[in-house]
Amino acid sequence: MESHVNANKFVVGVDFGTLSGRAVVVRVSDGAELGSAVHEYAHGVIERELPGSDVRLGPDWALQSPQDWIDVLRVAVPAAVAAAGVSPADVIGIGTDFTACTVLPATADGTPLCFETPELPHAWPKLWKHHAAQPHADRINALAARRGESWLPRYGGKISSEWEFAKALQVLEEDPGTYERAERWIEAADWIVWQLTGVESRNICTAGYKGIFQDGGYPSEDFLAELNPAFAGFTGKLATGQVGEDAGKGVRLAALGAPAGTLSARAAAWTGLPEGVAVAVGNVDAHVTAAAADAVAPGRMVAIMGTSTCHIMPSDRLAEVPGMCGVVRDGIVPGLWGYEAGQSAVGDIFAWFVDAFVPAAYTRRAAEQGVSVHAHLTALAAEQAVGQHGLVALDWFGGNRSVLVDHNLSGVVLGQTLATRPEDVYRALIEATAYGARTIVETFEKSGVPVEEFVVAGGLLKNPFLMQVYADVLRRPLSVIGSDQGPALGSAIHAAVAAGAYDDIQAAAAAMGKRTEAAYVPDEARADAYDRLYAEYRDLHEHFGDGKALHRLRAIRNEARA
Amino acid sequence: MESHVNANKFVVGVDFGTLSGRAVVVRVSDGAELGSAVHEYAHGVIERELPGSDVRLGPDWALQSPQDWIDVLRVAVPAAVAAAGVSPADVIGIGTDFTACTVLPATADGTPLCFETPELPHAWPKLWKHHAAQPHADRINALAARRGESWLPRYGGKISSEWEFAKALQVLEEDPGTYERAERWIEAADWIVWQLTGVESRNICTAGYKGIFQDGGYPSEDFLAELNPAFAGFTGKLATGQVGEDAGKGVRLAALGAPAGTLSARAAAWTGLPEGVAVAVGNVDAHVTAAAADAVAPGRMVAIMGTSTCHIMPSDRLAEVPGMCGVVRDGIVPGLWGYEAGQSAVGDIFAWFVDAFVPAAYTRRAAEQGVSVHAHLTALAAEQAVGQHGLVALDWFGGNRSVLVDHNLSGVVLGQTLATRPEDVYRALIEATAYGARTIVETFEKSGVPVEEFVVAGGLLKNPFLMQVYADVLRRPLSVIGSDQGPALGSAIHAAVAAGAYDDIQAAAAAMGKRTEAAYVPDEARADAYDRLYAEYRDLHEHFGDGKALHRLRAIRNEARA
Repeated sequence: MESHVNANKFVVGVDFGTLSGRAVVVRVSDGAELGSAVHEYAHGVIERELPGSDVRLGPDWALQSPQDWIDVLRVAVPAAVAAAGVSPADVIGIGTDFTACTVLPATADGTPLCFETPELPHAWPKLWKHHAAQPHADRINALAARRGESWLPRYGGKISSEWEFAKALQVLEEDPGTYERAERWIEAADWIVWQLTGVESRNICTAGYKGIFQDGGYPSEDFLAELNPAFAGFTGKLATGQVGEDAGKGVRLAALGAPAGTLSARAAAWTGLPEGVAVAVGNVDAHVTAAAADAVAPGRMVAIMGTSTCHIMPSDRLAEVPGMCGVVRDGIVPGLWGYEAGQSAVGDIFAWFVDAFVPAAYTRRAAEQGVSVHAHLTALAAEQAVGQHGLVALDWFGGNRSVLVDHNLSGVVLGQTLATRPEDVYRALIEATAYGARTIVETFEKSGVPVEEFVVAGGLLKNPFLMQVYADVLRRPLSVIGSDQGPALGSAIHAAVAAGAYDDIQAAAAAMGKRTEAAYVPDEARADAYDRLYAEYRDLHEHFGDGKALHRLRAIRNEARA
Repeated sequence: MESHVNANKFVVGVDFGTLSGRAVVVRVSDGAELGSAVHEYAHGVIERELPGSDVRLGPDWALQSPQDWIDVLRVAVPAAVAAAGVSPADVIGIGTDFTACTVLPATADGTPLCFETPELPHAWPKLWKHHAAQPHADRINALAARRGESWLPRYGGKISSEWEFAKALQVLEEDPGTYERAERWIEAADWIVWQLTGVESRNICTAGYKGIFQDGGYPSEDFLAELNPAFAGFTGKLATGQVGEDAGKGVRLAALGAPAGTLSARAAAWTGLPEGVAVAVGNVDAHVTAAAADAVAPGRMVAIMGTSTCHIMPSDRLAEVPGMCGVVRDGIVPGLWGYEAGQSAVGDIFAWFVDAFVPAAYTRRAAEQGVSVHAHLTALAAEQAVGQHGLVALDWFGGNRSVLVDHNLSGVVLGQTLATRPEDVYRALIEATAYGARTIVETFEKSGVPVEEFVVAGGLLKNPFLMQVYADVLRRPLSVIGSDQGPALGSAIHAAVAAGAYDDIQAAAAAMGKRTEAAYVPDEARADAYDRLYAEYRDLHEHFGDGKALHRLRAIRNEARA
């Protein structure tokens, strides 16, 4: 495609987040973001009781309403197009990304079961952060380890309670009727595409990362039957064929960047876009950001740093990286292995600290200066030399996703004295998350998967001091994404590929993605100083990483609460 | 003495603290506290520059003005007598106690050198918390360890930078002229008695705990010469004879409870008390509190819990208790060994946390409820079951005095999550100090020195929740002192003995001291739960107690600051 054509063509990317959905209109030729709109979900996260009823939910439950997602299509998409000032007739495609694993039971025609039996909690979509299936995940992991299932190492040795199988097993065992009625068990990422096209499709990304699809198949019927005899046929509710394979009457897995179909008349009416434009295969918010950051080449690790951090990296090598979240063939771009790792809490740690442990004098001074408390603490922390606070912390306040895969770990802070101030701890917490990132990068490299470039996306980009800390701790230049709506831009790029405007995701990302190389460069002296502190972090990581002490504390806590 | 006599007689106790001096008038028959008065020191703690000059002090310096102490005699004593409504003519004695080691250079007639050369920093009294002699203490300890000096184990293996020899060596090496002019090197505890009586005396308590007087002598001339040839004759500036021994022209060490002399005409004019009444031998604030708590029998450990905690215990056995501050024959009461141990920071930790890490919402709610932030946090913490916060901390925020004797240790907090609130940490800090106390008690008992009763005095008594935590953690009933001015009451009791109203300190303490036994009794279930948390504390104590990690962090900090 030539750019003079694309210069007059546009694509829409829609990012379905935890509390809202965002649509962005992007120029196909160069990725310029021309307009965007956000729609907050009316039901938000459903955690206490079902909407319009007094049915109470258990602890660790988190649901969402499919109607909220449809409303994003109806509200945010037309608003974004209007804001962009483009003609809908010039829009050639739409792409979407979703939180994952957010998954729901549906009938064969895609009707969410919660539309039929809204009084049943298990009929509703389970949001990614629904954690009530932990016992089920534990059983899956124990059995898989015992049987030596070949797919287990692809997930760093453990699958998550957030994923499809654990959540489905919970439905089966707690509400067999709903399980039975669920002809389809489908990621919201795929369900929303079904709503747009009228045709069911399944993307390879969620199938691989959340659906344990590896080497052409799901966990065996035999394995599932050993978990629970009634679970044996579960995969019949998923896709039934590989990419490029005839699935018969079943649903084929679809490659990322491919068209899932075209916009249906109904969806055209919702969105105001022309019927028949390309609809891209579904995707995950983190993974699609790789395209937005033009980081779809092997060894470009994208860290999407927000409340938590997700690390996404394509590679030409397959390896078992300890504690990774997953490695999936074609999981980020076709033709490469896609790696995912993560830090459970990053921005969440800073927010927690500011909310719970910063005294009035600081909030007052921040207000006087017209800055946020975060900015005030950052400014104070930035005045210090490396190590001046005398602190080192383990960044496990939300558990540890990579490389320990242990949600029952907790935070450790060392070195406080009666002279320690909030800005000291704040800086130590920032540094701790950087040490956590370095641990992940080093684990990849030690496992034979080179990290050629570290590319940052996400909300924490707005803190240059934090970015510099990461550059110094990682001892490498940081690249940064050039957009503050990475997932939506990434979805738009996928839409451009699906619409045929580019040959593949790489070409589209090169033209439309935005990445500034070496935006932050390490300072040698500071990096040397951080090496000493990182050695302390590693010692603590080693000592407490076995979980013994922290698990005992957690057990004491849980017993005391019971 | 019969009580119908003592019922009409009174004694005055004067407690010289860090920021003020307090006088209390006490009935001899029963210890009733009839009136008291406080005088704040005009110069407070001199830490930055010398009074009335621009001479700057170095880091870690802390001085006081002898004039402030005299002013306590002139202001607080008459005010207390007036407040008590007793006739000065019925006052039969006065006793004093002081912070220690607070020490000054003086001429042979007791004139403080700072009265003659106020422009010289080393001419001023060095307050207990003057820590600038650490390098000198380090050399003393290293040499004593190398030579195997017999007195070293009496101090848990290390003498403190706060003590007489370290501070004197600093004077010698930094200002030899002042060292030379100092005919006397005297504890403020003894200097103030000199001012009252006109005669120099030296108490056995400070001589033993702060002056390394053991088994009838000071460190040898040979030892001192090896430190610095010019230091060889240092002990000539101290007392020169033992208790009960003829000191020739020198100054005899005096037993606690003995009269140091009688009130001089000059001191009578200052205080408004009758010339010629008994003046007790000087004492230390912590040690004299044992009498006030009627805890002068073997195995009664008095914990004076305030900003820090000091543990004082008489015993009939001599043992080398690891990490104790000192064991001194006759050091609390004549005829018994007196043990001292300590926790560097206790109330200071809670104050630091409230000052630096409690957000506005808490201070606002406390204000709305008309309570202190401490009380508000305590109330919230008290609602929790043991272990519910999931935390355990090492109480080393001010270093560790006993049992590790390491001021370069620092705090450790384990188990925080994004749900951790200030009341959780506040409770964990209280508990950490209780674990520290238990570690001290267990160390004494393991060393063959039984702790029969744990008696609490000091400002933290006013927090019943904290007291209950200590009872539960220690698994033993707590006795509590019946006075909130323990040191001054103890000094008054010593004055009664010096005046001959009682045969000895034990008899006076039995009549005038105030102790409630089993004021707090452990709850079995909570004690069991605390046993599990204490085991975690002990693991951390073991792991970080070698100081390796924390010393490296401290070194990194100090280099970064330099």
